[in-house]
Amino acid sequence: MTEEVELELADAQSLTLRACLGAGANPASARSLADATLSAARFGPAAVGFPHLVDYLNSFREGRINGDPTPTLKRPFPAYLASDADRGIAQLGFDIAFADLVATGRQMGIALFTQKNSYTTGELGYYVRRLANEGLVGLAVTNANAMVAPKAGGPAVYSTNPLAFGFPLGDDAPPLVIDQSASATAYVNIVAAAGEGRPIPEGWAVDAAGADTRDAQEALAGALLPFGGRKGANIALLVEMLSAGLSGGAWSLDAPSFMAGDACPAVGLTVLAIMPGPAGGDHVSRAREQARRLQEYGVHVPGVSGKARAALPQTVRMSRGVHDALRRFAS
Amino acid sequence: MTEEVELELADAQSLTLRACLGAGANPASARSLADATLSAARFGPAAVGFPHLVDYLNSFREGRINGDPTPTLKRPFPAYLASDADRGIAQLGFDIAFADLVATGRQMGIALFTQKNSYTTGELGYYVRRLANEGLVGLAVTNANAMVAPKAGGPAVYSTNPLAFGFPLGDDAPPLVIDQSASATAYVNIVAAAGEGRPIPEGWAVDAAGADTRDAQEALAGALLPFGGRKGANIALLVEMLSAGLSGGAWSLDAPSFMAGDACPAVGLTVLAIMPGPAGGDHVSRAREQARRLQEYGVHVPGVSGKARAALPQTVRMSRGVHDALRRFAS
Repeated sequence: MTEEVELELADAQSLTLRACLGAGANPASARSLADATLSAARFGPAAVGFPHLVDYLNSFREGRINGDPTPTLKRPFPAYLASDADRGIAQLGFDIAFADLVATGRQMGIALFTQKNSYTTGELGYYVRRLANEGLVGLAVTNANAMVAPKAGGPAVYSTNPLAFGFPLGDDAPPLVIDQSASATAYVNIVAAAGEGRPIPEGWAVDAAGADTRDAQEALAGALLPFGGRKGANIALLVEMLSAGLSGGAWSLDAPSFMAGDACPAVGLTVLAIMPGPAGGDHVSRAREQARRLQEYGVHVPGVSGKARAALPQTVRMSRGVHDALRRFAS
Repeated sequence: MTEEVELELADAQSLTLRACLGAGANPASARSLADATLSAARFGPAAVGFPHLVDYLNSFREGRINGDPTPTLKRPFPAYLASDADRGIAQLGFDIAFADLVATGRQMGIALFTQKNSYTTGELGYYVRRLANEGLVGLAVTNANAMVAPKAGGPAVYSTNPLAFGFPLGDDAPPLVIDQSASATAYVNIVAAAGEGRPIPEGWAVDAAGADTRDAQEALAGALLPFGGRKGANIALLVEMLSAGLSGGAWSLDAPSFMAGDACPAVGLTVLAIMPGPAGGDHVSRAREQARRLQEYGVHVPGVSGKARAALPQTVRMSRGVHDALRRFAS
């Protein structure tokens, strides 16, 4: 068992801010990243919270993130916000646009935010969870450097190309939030299997020659596979076109790694904000009732099933190693 | 080999119109359905063209489709069109809104069409292909009666819940068009296997008790499974919420069968129309270049790969049995 450190939210927020500033982020970037990190730590999978923050800190230091960017926001159409993140973090450009995106979505019924030229987005569920908390349906897609081959025998042409979807279920209920990659598994699971010398399940990855492999080491030199074969590969293609295609951001094939080198991945992020129905309608309560019924039928409803949100902890946990890293950057 | 009948497009159109009118469709419904059927026969999978038209004709006759509906179109928000199909065909409500959806998408940058209370939509690629031909990115989702269980051990709670996506690639190029269900396979493939006494692959279906089965007969009494396990089930959930949830149409759990009985499925359809980028930008040519590059890497790009659109046939084919059925309805 890894030794863990438990922090009050305010202390974790403060440490995160100081670590970001220490790594070279300007105050606005530090604030945006701290908000997203705390949210991911509380609501998302643990790995995309504080452990992933260390990737950001290294990337500020090593030049993959512009810590002092000048994001620009344009409105080429009334319901269409186009952001250029200037090689900074994706969350800053989103924060700058957020109030406008929410107001436009409410006024127009639907609004689009599309951003190019950012570092990778972190937990994608964060973007749609924020919209759901404003009563808006959200759909978010993003890309990164290529690491997924559409099928065995071919090279990696997509990133894990995640998609997130949120639907508000009313003021007192946590929203439905789907957040999943188009790959059969996360890269970290291959790394873990390789570290422990374990084989990986069939269908997770191919080796450097593009052949199916169950050897995690060979998979690290190869590529991930999509979930669900050809249909999953098409989901990755859809995500690629809606993120890099709409935004004008780097295609996954052209994006530098988010983990090495000194170039920003400069990728795309697209977020839709949609009214769940006409004003005064019953679409939200109807959706809440449907989420309840699906759970009665034994269906896992992501974001809703198996969580006691009422008892959300007011502390966060991280490994000793991650805590030490944050303190080094903060000092 | 099934004996086939080959018809000129104009003759097929005329026969389809007469068959629809003979089955009880009013002229507007007949025209909308003939357009969609011809398009599906030329561009979509063969099964969703004329063979599926016979399902429509039976449904007009047997009361599952209102052949003389009064669809209503409202605009609760400037970029949000809400249709009630009045238990008629989905294509008629879409046709009534189409010019407005295109104009609103171009003006606002994004527009949403959501419709409740229709028969099942037919080929879903049709809706996004039409938008792509107008230079708009399209995303379409719809539902129907429940026939997919999210996982073995549970009951069917979703229809095959298809999703379609289109991206225009320029005037002289066919658009990228993805059109796929959230089920591992189409229901017709189970029917075919049962008819021939063949086993079905693992992961296609469960029996009436919810257990994995490779017996096609048992699968017919059971439910389909999603593609790609839990992630595919989440895609089905996303489609359910965006189609029935946004529109206010029937949830798959509540929708009567589109194949039997005298009640309309009364389901939902949601279609987004999105500008591919700011006016005068290079997003379309950039996407076309990316589609070309992906094909060079061996990737199948749906709608683009492996088709010689320049040589699209000016005739359509259907089986003798389907042709006879159309003629019976037309006479």
